[in-house]
Amino acid sequence: MPEFFNVLPPDEARRLLFEHITLPVRSEMWPTVDSLGRVTVEPTFAPQALPSFRRSTMDGYAVRAEDTYGASETLPVVLTVMSEVEMGKASLFPIGKYSAAVVHTGGMIPDVADAVVQIEHTQQVDPANSIRFPFEIEVFKAVAVGQNVLQVGEDVEQGTQVIPGRHYLRAQDLGGLLALGITEIMVARRPRVAIIATGDEVVEPGADPGPGEIRDINSYTVAGQTRNAGGIPMLFGIIPDNFAVLKEAAEKAIEENDMVVMSAGSSVSVRDMTVKVMEELGEPGVLLHGVATRPGKPTIIGVAAGKPLIGLPGNPVSAMIQFFMFGTPTIYRLQGLLRPPRQGIVWARISANIASESGREDYVPAKLEDSVEGLMAKPVFGKSNLIYTLVNADGLIKVPLNSGGLEAGDWVEVHLF
Amino acid sequence: MPEFFNVLPPDEARRLLFEHITLPVRSEMWPTVDSLGRVTVEPTFAPQALPSFRRSTMDGYAVRAEDTYGASETLPVVLTVMSEVEMGKASLFPIGKYSAAVVHTGGMIPDVADAVVQIEHTQQVDPANSIRFPFEIEVFKAVAVGQNVLQVGEDVEQGTQVIPGRHYLRAQDLGGLLALGITEIMVARRPRVAIIATGDEVVEPGADPGPGEIRDINSYTVAGQTRNAGGIPMLFGIIPDNFAVLKEAAEKAIEENDMVVMSAGSSVSVRDMTVKVMEELGEPGVLLHGVATRPGKPTIIGVAAGKPLIGLPGNPVSAMIQFFMFGTPTIYRLQGLLRPPRQGIVWARISANIASESGREDYVPAKLEDSVEGLMAKPVFGKSNLIYTLVNADGLIKVPLNSGGLEAGDWVEVHLF
Repeated sequence: MPEFFNVLPPDEARRLLFEHITLPVRSEMWPTVDSLGRVTVEPTFAPQALPSFRRSTMDGYAVRAEDTYGASETLPVVLTVMSEVEMGKASLFPIGKYSAAVVHTGGMIPDVADAVVQIEHTQQVDPANSIRFPFEIEVFKAVAVGQNVLQVGEDVEQGTQVIPGRHYLRAQDLGGLLALGITEIMVARRPRVAIIATGDEVVEPGADPGPGEIRDINSYTVAGQTRNAGGIPMLFGIIPDNFAVLKEAAEKAIEENDMVVMSAGSSVSVRDMTVKVMEELGEPGVLLHGVATRPGKPTIIGVAAGKPLIGLPGNPVSAMIQFFMFGTPTIYRLQGLLRPPRQGIVWARISANIASESGREDYVPAKLEDSVEGLMAKPVFGKSNLIYTLVNADGLIKVPLNSGGLEAGDWVEVHLF
Repeated sequence: MPEFFNVLPPDEARRLLFEHITLPVRSEMWPTVDSLGRVTVEPTFAPQALPSFRRSTMDGYAVRAEDTYGASETLPVVLTVMSEVEMGKASLFPIGKYSAAVVHTGGMIPDVADAVVQIEHTQQVDPANSIRFPFEIEVFKAVAVGQNVLQVGEDVEQGTQVIPGRHYLRAQDLGGLLALGITEIMVARRPRVAIIATGDEVVEPGADPGPGEIRDINSYTVAGQTRNAGGIPMLFGIIPDNFAVLKEAAEKAIEENDMVVMSAGSSVSVRDMTVKVMEELGEPGVLLHGVATRPGKPTIIGVAAGKPLIGLPGNPVSAMIQFFMFGTPTIYRLQGLLRPPRQGIVWARISANIASESGREDYVPAKLEDSVEGLMAKPVFGKSNLIYTLVNADGLIKVPLNSGGLEAGDWVEVHLF
């Protein structure tokens, strides 16, 4: 029985797993407007400068800065306004000496003009005429060259890298791409994650369980975590504790998908069966028979056909926390992301001591509460069989490896969960 | 011109807006398995206890605890194993005095038995017979009543509230509901958010802009933010700067949707037109002509027909940050959530001074970098016209109202963005 002959701390376990994954990142062209949360495959370069023309950042008058030098409240400079630059139109007339043109915020700056005087720093000489050009204005404040003007390429220069490869796309990234007219982008395909539940005692959530039976929940919590990480959950349903049947399901799962998760059950016999099935799926098979964490020590990690295999404990709390530790980063990895997007981690003070054994990295569910002393994290102690331990928690307190536990009042990282 | 006659700090601005929203939360029954990220409408109570039967948390033998009292390595107690409780089956035979039954992790505890002895603390008297019942075992360690047993209702008691109303559903919540056989749940409908872009200079992202023209990006960044908050973006496209046309679009938008966002443009004339259109949509109309923040002072906030109206500045950075401050919490509010789910906020030290005027709440884009002194937030200074200011940032540093700015080395909240 290979029980726990190879137990590693979480960081080393992840490294070992990632080293063996050889499945390449697969890509597809995708409409930029629908790419929120997708991961880029290759860097994108600006096909043009942004802005592509000089733009005003104020409502006012485009001028030659030198014409305004010395202007003040007591000694204004008088300029002649010759025309208006309409929004969305080219500015056709260059600005002559001591001339100006009406410009609106975002409008194009006419040739020769090199600054914009804000309308608030001017006054029309004849306020009765505000329509017909030419008319005269008094300028009360000098402007410097470039003032209130966005230069060509000030946002991005043509040819520069605007979005790197292996980048998680957020709303502003879509905006940046669309501003450059990039309406399609190469992104990593969403990994298909097969989820197999096992157990003679497990029935579908819609079923009415008989004595000794329980409803499958791990398939759905792991499916939710998979979706959150950008994967597509492929539910294989509940497989009975039968080696041949489980092996057939697992073979189909690995053939059709990019990753296989088995909710391995908690009893040693079922767990051994999961290990045996994983060993038969291909080389190198099982890499690890356990992880130095609580909860979730009996997690099985392997690779076959270059694709990751994860055997989760049957307990719902252990299953979710282990999937958070190994499944989520693996799904991002399959999209080319070397590190998950910075997740919500808040800092809070813990309200009670937490014991931990040295050599183990623990995750304790916690409820967050605002207090006069700042955010408090209240540990939710509960057996890892009890899903409502997690329902009642806002996040997980990480008790670092070899810390020997935490004391009430300590500041801790809480991973929103 | 009503320019800035009513400028409030962000907290007060949000309160004023929320006070005037009278649109009720609309609900729909939804399959639990597809409810990730949805918000519950009413509390859910447990229709049954969980677990519904006594379960073993170990592989071992179900026993009467009192039969094991005094057992030790040197003086084991001998018990007779009469049967095995199969997984998913009822335990048919009660345990007699000095008897035991094989149980697996998660299996049902037979009547009369009140504890489980781990298999590791036992040994078969005749190892040759491991199949036929009855057989005898030696128990080396006493167990207490209830040891290694999950009691009925230990996770949740029948009738208790398991999920509150106005609760944002996470993967573990779906698990908790499914464990109780709750396969459908009443959730808030996803709010439909109309997004109207305005501007004679604005063209579709797929178009080739002429001189003076720019591509619409605010529609898509706001659509992304809307999706992230659980709303459904309804894009109305680009409306020219024409009062009648804009009014018609806005009337249609408010009639068909739960919220209207107008990318109001940055020039005063376009902004005034947006204000006038909002005033004509219904009572109370415009509530606020500006917010004491940077960037984004010229944000317009109103309510008509009980539905929220937001007029965003045209600058892409201001538009996104203002939508983060007002749009996102409003969309959650329309789903009944009084406060957005705890968002990713990280703490970091800033790498440079940030100036701020008193009486204003500022948001400065920042790039996060790991350093030996912990996480550093490097301000990304840039004009609010430059979308790549946000593309190059990981989050927003909040400079609190009346703080007068921040100094390099200060710890700050960075809102992941």
